[in-house]
Amino acid sequence: MYLMRIGPAGSEKPVARIDDDSYVDLSDVVTDFNEAFFASGGLALIAPVVDARRASGDVRKFAGERIGAPIARPHQILCIGLNYSDHAAETGQAVPAEPILFTKSPNTLIGPNDDVRIPRGATKPDWEVELGIVIGKRASYLDSVEDAADYIAGFTVVNDVSERAFQLERNGQWSKGKSSETFNPAGPWLVTSDEIDNVHDLGMWLDVSGVRRQTGSTSTMIFDPFFIVHYLSQFLVLEPGDLINTGTPPGVGMGFTPPIWLQAGDVMELGIDGLGAQRQTVIAPR
Amino acid sequence: MYLMRIGPAGSEKPVARIDDDSYVDLSDVVTDFNEAFFASGGLALIAPVVDARRASGDVRKFAGERIGAPIARPHQILCIGLNYSDHAAETGQAVPAEPILFTKSPNTLIGPNDDVRIPRGATKPDWEVELGIVIGKRASYLDSVEDAADYIAGFTVVNDVSERAFQLERNGQWSKGKSSETFNPAGPWLVTSDEIDNVHDLGMWLDVSGVRRQTGSTSTMIFDPFFIVHYLSQFLVLEPGDLINTGTPPGVGMGFTPPIWLQAGDVMELGIDGLGAQRQTVIAPR
Repeated sequence: MYLMRIGPAGSEKPVARIDDDSYVDLSDVVTDFNEAFFASGGLALIAPVVDARRASGDVRKFAGERIGAPIARPHQILCIGLNYSDHAAETGQAVPAEPILFTKSPNTLIGPNDDVRIPRGATKPDWEVELGIVIGKRASYLDSVEDAADYIAGFTVVNDVSERAFQLERNGQWSKGKSSETFNPAGPWLVTSDEIDNVHDLGMWLDVSGVRRQTGSTSTMIFDPFFIVHYLSQFLVLEPGDLINTGTPPGVGMGFTPPIWLQAGDVMELGIDGLGAQRQTVIAPR
Repeated sequence: MYLMRIGPAGSEKPVARIDDDSYVDLSDVVTDFNEAFFASGGLALIAPVVDARRASGDVRKFAGERIGAPIARPHQILCIGLNYSDHAAETGQAVPAEPILFTKSPNTLIGPNDDVRIPRGATKPDWEVELGIVIGKRASYLDSVEDAADYIAGFTVVNDVSERAFQLERNGQWSKGKSSETFNPAGPWLVTSDEIDNVHDLGMWLDVSGVRRQTGSTSTMIFDPFFIVHYLSQFLVLEPGDLINTGTPPGVGMGFTPPIWLQAGDVMELGIDGLGAQRQTVIAPR
């Protein structure tokens, strides 16, 4: 399934995308794609509803609605740092021996095409196309990497927007430069795991104002999604609906010489093969 | 007001403590002390209810109920590191020029007397008595430190339990050693700001198995609660019901020579003047 939330911010309705033109409305059977939905086995419950409505022609046409993030605000947004060997190289840092964990405030989550706002005082805003993992059920002390697939609902595109001065020059710990409002566009779809042939070989790209800046593939990830879920479950409890940003391939603004920072008016376009594309306009501080 | 949540984990009821023996039940007027409660001005709405019920004798006796955290699971738990000059010294680190921010997973929140469980693989579990700030309304880009008081609902005691090997020896970023289940006891009370004469001069203490380990006072904080709320609001948006752990005074296990780590069977007792006391038994990994 390709799950979406469409409509005004704060009152999106849950739907399943059929194709570019049409969707199955699920707002009569599901409140939202949130923690309670995943925890109650919602994915399995809606699958036959989507099939039946599709078969009977009970579908609707998209009419230019705003697209929200494909999940409700999660309990937590966890992020893995320096998880592509070529990106670690461009930042001048060593390939990590085990995953680096940092976090973003959950209220940074926005729709895939919403504006990204530069925070006040920012001097080094930057982009990061990433594969996002959505947790499907509560995960604690998973026995093996192989078990992790059962705990993943699916995948989505995220832009892990960062303010490098806040992150690296304002006294330790990266969260400070990762949590400004609008800093986590996600979507357009939550693509359930069964729809993805090989999550280890998905092309990724990001353009800034028409110039290709990031080109990569999940094939160069250091720690793959299943390793990450197993690993994190040894340190904390993952809740249904939690989002994990899994790191970015080369080409972030920080990696250029001289570095390139986002400016108001820039447009970021990004995507991952099979998971759809995003487009954000960068706007000035409020 | 001294707000509490009492009853079994996951189904606590919101009450206002009158004294050690009695409380006003608020479960008929309030669902929970959660984000929606604070956002809707709940504190102002319940104050006259508490007064009226107290005046009319509509109070109940405590009957040994479990005490939960005084707030529901928050949107985020933010933490300030090295925020007491004497604690910074004992860890061998410099006094920070501005607040160090790190985070804990919100599902670490437990009641003040619940068991604290050592995570699997832990070698250096440690304690930290801290003053916790509960946010009362959405805070973004506060104009001044003086404005911050209006955004604070009140204060509580927290034990910012840490696993130092996970935090410091497992590849960067402290969150990894701060987010294990049961790592954030809070309570027993949310003490609303109006009940506290001077938050800048509250004694703090923590005992491990009967031995005094931490003695301190909020008077030696480097960045005070109002500075912290103003500061954080420049980097991210604080939501109603968010919890901020404001750092710990000297005497953590890491600071001893040789260091002292928590063991299964240890009992932690801790408190802050006017904010009540906690007691947790440390239990083995599951």
